[in-house]
Amino acid sequence: MKNFKIALAQFSPHIGNIEKNTLKMIEQANQAKAEKADIIIFPELSTIGYPAEDLLLRASVKARTQNAFAELAQVKDIVMVFGFVHHTEDGQRLNSAAVMKDGEVLGIYNKQNLPNYSVFDEKRYFNEGHQHLVFEYLEHKFGVLICEDIWNINTVQQLAQLNVDSILVLNASPYEVGKPQHRVATMAALAKQFRINLMYTNQVGGQDDLIFDGSSFALDREGQLIFRLDSFQEQLGYAEFDAEPASFKIQAAKPELETMAEIYQGLVMATRDYVQRSGFPGVILGLSGGIDSALTLAIAVDALGADKVQAVMMPYTYTAQISIEDAAEQAKNLGVAFGVAEIHNVVNSFMQTLYPFFGNAPADATEENLQARSRGMLLMALSNKFGNLVLSTGNKSELAVGYCTLYGDMVGGFAVLKDVYKTIVFELAKYRNSISETPVIPERVITRPPSAELRPDQKDQDSLPAYDVLDAILYAYIEEDLSQNEIIARGFDAKVVEKVIRLVDTNEYKRKQGVIGPRISSRAFSRERRYPIVNGWKAGI
Amino acid sequence: MKNFKIALAQFSPHIGNIEKNTLKMIEQANQAKAEKADIIIFPELSTIGYPAEDLLLRASVKARTQNAFAELAQVKDIVMVFGFVHHTEDGQRLNSAAVMKDGEVLGIYNKQNLPNYSVFDEKRYFNEGHQHLVFEYLEHKFGVLICEDIWNINTVQQLAQLNVDSILVLNASPYEVGKPQHRVATMAALAKQFRINLMYTNQVGGQDDLIFDGSSFALDREGQLIFRLDSFQEQLGYAEFDAEPASFKIQAAKPELETMAEIYQGLVMATRDYVQRSGFPGVILGLSGGIDSALTLAIAVDALGADKVQAVMMPYTYTAQISIEDAAEQAKNLGVAFGVAEIHNVVNSFMQTLYPFFGNAPADATEENLQARSRGMLLMALSNKFGNLVLSTGNKSELAVGYCTLYGDMVGGFAVLKDVYKTIVFELAKYRNSISETPVIPERVITRPPSAELRPDQKDQDSLPAYDVLDAILYAYIEEDLSQNEIIARGFDAKVVEKVIRLVDTNEYKRKQGVIGPRISSRAFSRERRYPIVNGWKAGI
Repeated sequence: MKNFKIALAQFSPHIGNIEKNTLKMIEQANQAKAEKADIIIFPELSTIGYPAEDLLLRASVKARTQNAFAELAQVKDIVMVFGFVHHTEDGQRLNSAAVMKDGEVLGIYNKQNLPNYSVFDEKRYFNEGHQHLVFEYLEHKFGVLICEDIWNINTVQQLAQLNVDSILVLNASPYEVGKPQHRVATMAALAKQFRINLMYTNQVGGQDDLIFDGSSFALDREGQLIFRLDSFQEQLGYAEFDAEPASFKIQAAKPELETMAEIYQGLVMATRDYVQRSGFPGVILGLSGGIDSALTLAIAVDALGADKVQAVMMPYTYTAQISIEDAAEQAKNLGVAFGVAEIHNVVNSFMQTLYPFFGNAPADATEENLQARSRGMLLMALSNKFGNLVLSTGNKSELAVGYCTLYGDMVGGFAVLKDVYKTIVFELAKYRNSISETPVIPERVITRPPSAELRPDQKDQDSLPAYDVLDAILYAYIEEDLSQNEIIARGFDAKVVEKVIRLVDTNEYKRKQGVIGPRISSRAFSRERRYPIVNGWKAGI
Repeated sequence: MKNFKIALAQFSPHIGNIEKNTLKMIEQANQAKAEKADIIIFPELSTIGYPAEDLLLRASVKARTQNAFAELAQVKDIVMVFGFVHHTEDGQRLNSAAVMKDGEVLGIYNKQNLPNYSVFDEKRYFNEGHQHLVFEYLEHKFGVLICEDIWNINTVQQLAQLNVDSILVLNASPYEVGKPQHRVATMAALAKQFRINLMYTNQVGGQDDLIFDGSSFALDREGQLIFRLDSFQEQLGYAEFDAEPASFKIQAAKPELETMAEIYQGLVMATRDYVQRSGFPGVILGLSGGIDSALTLAIAVDALGADKVQAVMMPYTYTAQISIEDAAEQAKNLGVAFGVAEIHNVVNSFMQTLYPFFGNAPADATEENLQARSRGMLLMALSNKFGNLVLSTGNKSELAVGYCTLYGDMVGGFAVLKDVYKTIVFELAKYRNSISETPVIPERVITRPPSAELRPDQKDQDSLPAYDVLDAILYAYIEEDLSQNEIIARGFDAKVVEKVIRLVDTNEYKRKQGVIGPRISSRAFSRERRYPIVNGWKAGI
């Protein structure tokens, strides 16, 4: 055996822009060459990015991919293993990996296991491959797998039986809490079981509602970590193989991120990528003095810089003085542009206009919604006039039970906390304060009881169970798919469970019109939880 | 052979409500028995309805389906062939049909071809079946297929080779323009080719964005139509087989619907089913004096009755006097409640509140959006206060190019014309006027040039190409999936094509938050055209 060096390109593609992605892949290959790498591995479908959804169905993907191959063929003296959309002569479309050296294609591998559950729809786009690919280079035998393949023990076993030394795995594996650790643990067990080195290269970057964390890593045949790349950043990593003693050099391991740091960084990256790739100069959000908008503001500033963020406080009769103070304080702490726009005149003009219809009908949610919608419209007007994207500030607990106003606080282009339960919002706020010298979120915002401030002395807990109870029920119903009876059997109050589930079920129409936001859980709304709006399902069993 | 009679139950399920659907199936079976039918055939997945989406993943579907079987087992003296979710002992979930007589299951067929393209996601939910089912009854050999199966010539051929006399096909085949005719033509050719009678039972009813037209039919082995059921209505139909001369009785054929009648009736049914099954007492919509809201109003009245429909005119400075007159006239023609709410005060209060931010910045789309959003908020407030569902009135052409305001004219619970191009809106309006003694849509609404009336003397055609050109380009890009170059090659102006495609591509974010509306085309937005919001795809090739 010879010494050699493998580069793992933790690559952030621009979805659908095959031309741009190809140029970037060439740059990274040249960079790896400068570091004396012999092989570079890119993520799954690196030319078009993942998931390209119905762009994959457009006819010119074929011609564009051929152009990409022609460009990549110019790269010399390094073996490139990259993902691409493979159109075969008999009309099949496959999710494939090419092994290319000096312009020559040494082999093509077609993904065998196509996930079609959770957030994945690969059977909509691809045919399945049926053959393994093994290639020898530098006296070392390499096998290639793509993402889902490595999770199928039969597929791995078949490849291992071909006496492969190392498996190169191209991935586009979306983030969820705990996933980076879960991948390493599972792969380490596999590497050890089959005594195979395993190079796991993952896509990085935010793509609409999906976060790709990267967190690429390399394992040796003992299941030892050779190295792990940082999460949520584009990076190149290198695994060095020494012919003597025929093993990879173990690199000093960086400490793992703790959970709140991991989620926080994921939300920051998702927000940055969405805003920048959509071409917005910055963002604007409504700052209420509450914890959701406070955390959203902190994330926005960390993602884009204070100069790209504008905050607006929109007080009304029910807004507490401390809300105004806390909002102003936080804006000042973070150094963002801050404005105040009272909504009394707008709300009054609506009420006057509606008087001929409403007469003296008693006040109800209508008047509360008018406040929320007046704020939403003001934010949208500021966005339209100056070009900043509106960040929506609602959390997963609210969205689950419909404790939010369609066209009101739900307006915006990106909902940073959409998949973050309220109990986690509190944790994240504390975490963010813990990492800077002075707290960026005023302490009082974290400690005071949450309120939508849409009627006098309103508290969230007047209408909803305490958030720790609510979130536990929601988690059981949404993430764990338990039935009403099963959740009650866990010891929750039956009436509370029934109410929460009824709220979740009847608010699907709001979520269907909701803005996208980054997925951090194992069951986010929309792409992953596809419920009909009109449905007669009865909770219970 | 013996004489016998087969009932086709063109059944409208309540999605997810297995208990209710089962009771209704029993009723229909008893009704068919009263008509001396020997066999009754229900549509695909009739117990749970189609598409139940992720409700299919809930664990209790299994127990609920077992209960349904127990209920259905009470029906005696008629063979029932119905669709259900089949959970096998080895943990598979299948899309299946049961043949049941006097409580005994005579056979089960598992769907072999699972569509996973267009609006279909069956591979997300089901495993594939691998065996045919043939059963003999009344000296006649029957085969069973489910929907997609009948479109796979290999599957049909294999079944035909088992010497089957008649194929019973259980369907949930969604409507699109021309589909009813296409089904009959294709099936007639198959029946004739294989010399097999073919009983095609289709689901009927609106389900969120999908219209199931029913249009069930029976064909004899010559490919002759035995009978066809009406589209867009629940019905039972009967095919009678005479042992002498061993053939089905051909019934007098009703005339086919012409295209505009077909679309119109489909939209009426979709609107009725959405509103009623969501439990709303009625609907409210903004009537502008333009053709989109005029047609939407006519459809709403035909769907629900005038007493369930409320129209509101919301004029502003740029609203023409004839718009107000035409709106009032139409409301009067149709006998719906009609109110007027001027939006000057609301718009002014917004402009005043925004003045500290806007200063003397020149007017742009922001001010136009404020008008549309003031109207949207008023409609939502009226909806919140009195409970009527807001119907959104935008058409497919607008939605495609983003000529509509998010949270403005896009608000609502159901967008009746969402999949209807503007050129078809005109045709439908003329059609609707043609079927009543006096026109329900004032002639001037149809003949005047379309305008959003958001600035002085504005016409749609100031910003957009003429609608016949626009719609032709949109159709080529969306329905036909052609590239920019291919569309230009058809003879359209290159600059116009580039602009239209850019508008379609950059307005995905609006559509992602758009309300659902009934699908009538072969490529509706959302469920069927899944594009990433952030994407770097460049039009051109």
